[in-house]
Amino acid sequence: MYVKISQDKLSQMINIAGKGISPNSPLPALSGIKFDIRKDYMECTGSDANISIQVREDKNDSFVYEVEEEGSIIINKSYISEIIKKIDSDVVTMEIGDTTMTRISGNKAQFDINGFRGSDYPLIDFTTPEQSFEMDASLLKTIVSETYFAASFSEARPVLTGINLRNDGETLTVVSTDSYRLARKELKIHIPFEFNITVLAKSLLDIARAFNDDEKVRVAMDSKKAQFFNDRLMIQTRLIDGTYPDTSRFIPASFPYELVLEKRDLISAINRSSFIKSENDQYAILKLSMDEHEVVMSSRSQEIGSSKENLSAESYKGEHLELFFSSKYVSEALNGLEGDKIRIQFAGQVKPFILTSLSDDTTLQLVLPVRAYN
Amino acid sequence: MYVKISQDKLSQMINIAGKGISPNSPLPALSGIKFDIRKDYMECTGSDANISIQVREDKNDSFVYEVEEEGSIIINKSYISEIIKKIDSDVVTMEIGDTTMTRISGNKAQFDINGFRGSDYPLIDFTTPEQSFEMDASLLKTIVSETYFAASFSEARPVLTGINLRNDGETLTVVSTDSYRLARKELKIHIPFEFNITVLAKSLLDIARAFNDDEKVRVAMDSKKAQFFNDRLMIQTRLIDGTYPDTSRFIPASFPYELVLEKRDLISAINRSSFIKSENDQYAILKLSMDEHEVVMSSRSQEIGSSKENLSAESYKGEHLELFFSSKYVSEALNGLEGDKIRIQFAGQVKPFILTSLSDDTTLQLVLPVRAYN
Repeated sequence: MYVKISQDKLSQMINIAGKGISPNSPLPALSGIKFDIRKDYMECTGSDANISIQVREDKNDSFVYEVEEEGSIIINKSYISEIIKKIDSDVVTMEIGDTTMTRISGNKAQFDINGFRGSDYPLIDFTTPEQSFEMDASLLKTIVSETYFAASFSEARPVLTGINLRNDGETLTVVSTDSYRLARKELKIHIPFEFNITVLAKSLLDIARAFNDDEKVRVAMDSKKAQFFNDRLMIQTRLIDGTYPDTSRFIPASFPYELVLEKRDLISAINRSSFIKSENDQYAILKLSMDEHEVVMSSRSQEIGSSKENLSAESYKGEHLELFFSSKYVSEALNGLEGDKIRIQFAGQVKPFILTSLSDDTTLQLVLPVRAYN
Repeated sequence: MYVKISQDKLSQMINIAGKGISPNSPLPALSGIKFDIRKDYMECTGSDANISIQVREDKNDSFVYEVEEEGSIIINKSYISEIIKKIDSDVVTMEIGDTTMTRISGNKAQFDINGFRGSDYPLIDFTTPEQSFEMDASLLKTIVSETYFAASFSEARPVLTGINLRNDGETLTVVSTDSYRLARKELKIHIPFEFNITVLAKSLLDIARAFNDDEKVRVAMDSKKAQFFNDRLMIQTRLIDGTYPDTSRFIPASFPYELVLEKRDLISAINRSSFIKSENDQYAILKLSMDEHEVVMSSRSQEIGSSKENLSAESYKGEHLELFFSSKYVSEALNGLEGDKIRIQFAGQVKPFILTSLSDDTTLQLVLPVRAYN
């Protein structure tokens, strides 16, 4: 194998494929990126048990790509990343002879790195399932950024570590929940087949980030896997087994209290007070006390002291209400909403409340209050 | 106590005084910053057992400072920093009544923080010793940035955790060493009294950073402490006990080999190869192989592979020489030298070598080679 290739393009491809690699892979070959060098194109593949990423670049005028001999090699992700990042040349040469030692050369710098044979890489079945639909990468990014944070980190209920995507023919509903809060996006887009799949939230975040804003993404799926791809990039992820809970029953039926205010003001106020927390709490517990005259946010800790802040609410409807919430959950919910103005609807002191944007009704954020501490 | 004060000025003062505070102070009051509010000036003090920092701002037109009632209070550094950083106003009010609860208010945000009485603060003797001299803060910064990294982190020989400053009436000599490398700066400045003191390297770094480039610093000392101060800022540090070793004997008498090259080239080459290291080594061990025809830097590890790079040397004088060095020590030594071109003088394969700048002969960096691994 012998190829000359642009440093910047190689660096990009390594970054993308590298996202698929888990640092503690049990299979040594999977700690590496597989490079497939062909006359007309190059592919880089990175994979762990859950996700496989394959990025491809066809020979074209915008990058140097001179192949003298085709071949495949696997090189440890961190070594090749280090080398390509710091190499002293815009064009890099990669060369292997009969062994798995790969020579990577820049201008004066030359590295001989132990690799694995391309044939040592596990066979990954990238066959595309029949059912697929296309969406804008920017929409995929929005969906994921508004939901991924509400998924659970705990393996206690694996299905909750995922983001659920469900299509009933009329509406695509995307939901995540850790059972203390929930994020839901509903989109009226026509997809000609029904599905109900759950993808690991962390994987879906990596997937969304790997595509460029102006790209299209085709989404294909069967009962085992989902693929997100276009001509340049193929990302395949295993689906999470298990039935995703019916989350519609979490949402209260009526909301006797409603607060409207600037998202930015509420985020700032939460940030200001969040250092006041008890030693035993990981995140600050804040208190909202609301009536038609004023909306006050406060916090209190035995050790530190207290804070109090009158929020500039646009409107508040309802009787006097006091409740407590986790600063982290509400901050993240707010960041998962578009627009400047936010509506918060409360069902009562210990019932979930929901946050929506005045300018975008496709996304709903739900948070369960915390039981009062005093 | 009641004062209105500019948020930005208060934030600056907290930052500076806060540098003196150790996160795990055994004395609770020392986890706080002491605020002394007087009609005409304000002082903030932070201290641990080693260093005490007092920053002062006189009432003047460039900052809001309206004192209604004088007083002193101690407030935990992290709480006050959090509050002032995020407060919703350019002018902050601080208020205490009869208790130690301090009310800090911005526009709508209000915090009641548990403090300590000013009188709970340990008495720090800021009396200025008789002997002192003045220097530019920029020179102090240079001296420290060129030496602090070579001091030891190990408490095994406490005196080596310091930077030694010695004046014999003609030359100020500043030295640090961890016994594997050494940094030395010699300045021909006239200071009318002799001294030989050792200051904790970390403290001296904090001190140098606290002053602005365009300020003057007065340095005063006796046998127990050193002070660095001007009208605005007073920093006092305990001296390290013990006799600093005579480091002149570390420096070889003759250097039969001499290499001259661009500092930047050598730093880049070291950065490129430094990921190639053995599992057991914390830092990469690099090899230099030099003769009149070529200068080659290389590295090797059983697991990863090897690297090789021809360095563009300006000149090399001497026989063929091969030696091994720690990438970290040589990188740091290079960063501790001014100018673009570097002279490295070698005394032999296992003898210390020294690095100097062609454009500045006041600083010498010495590094002990590593015994060969192959």
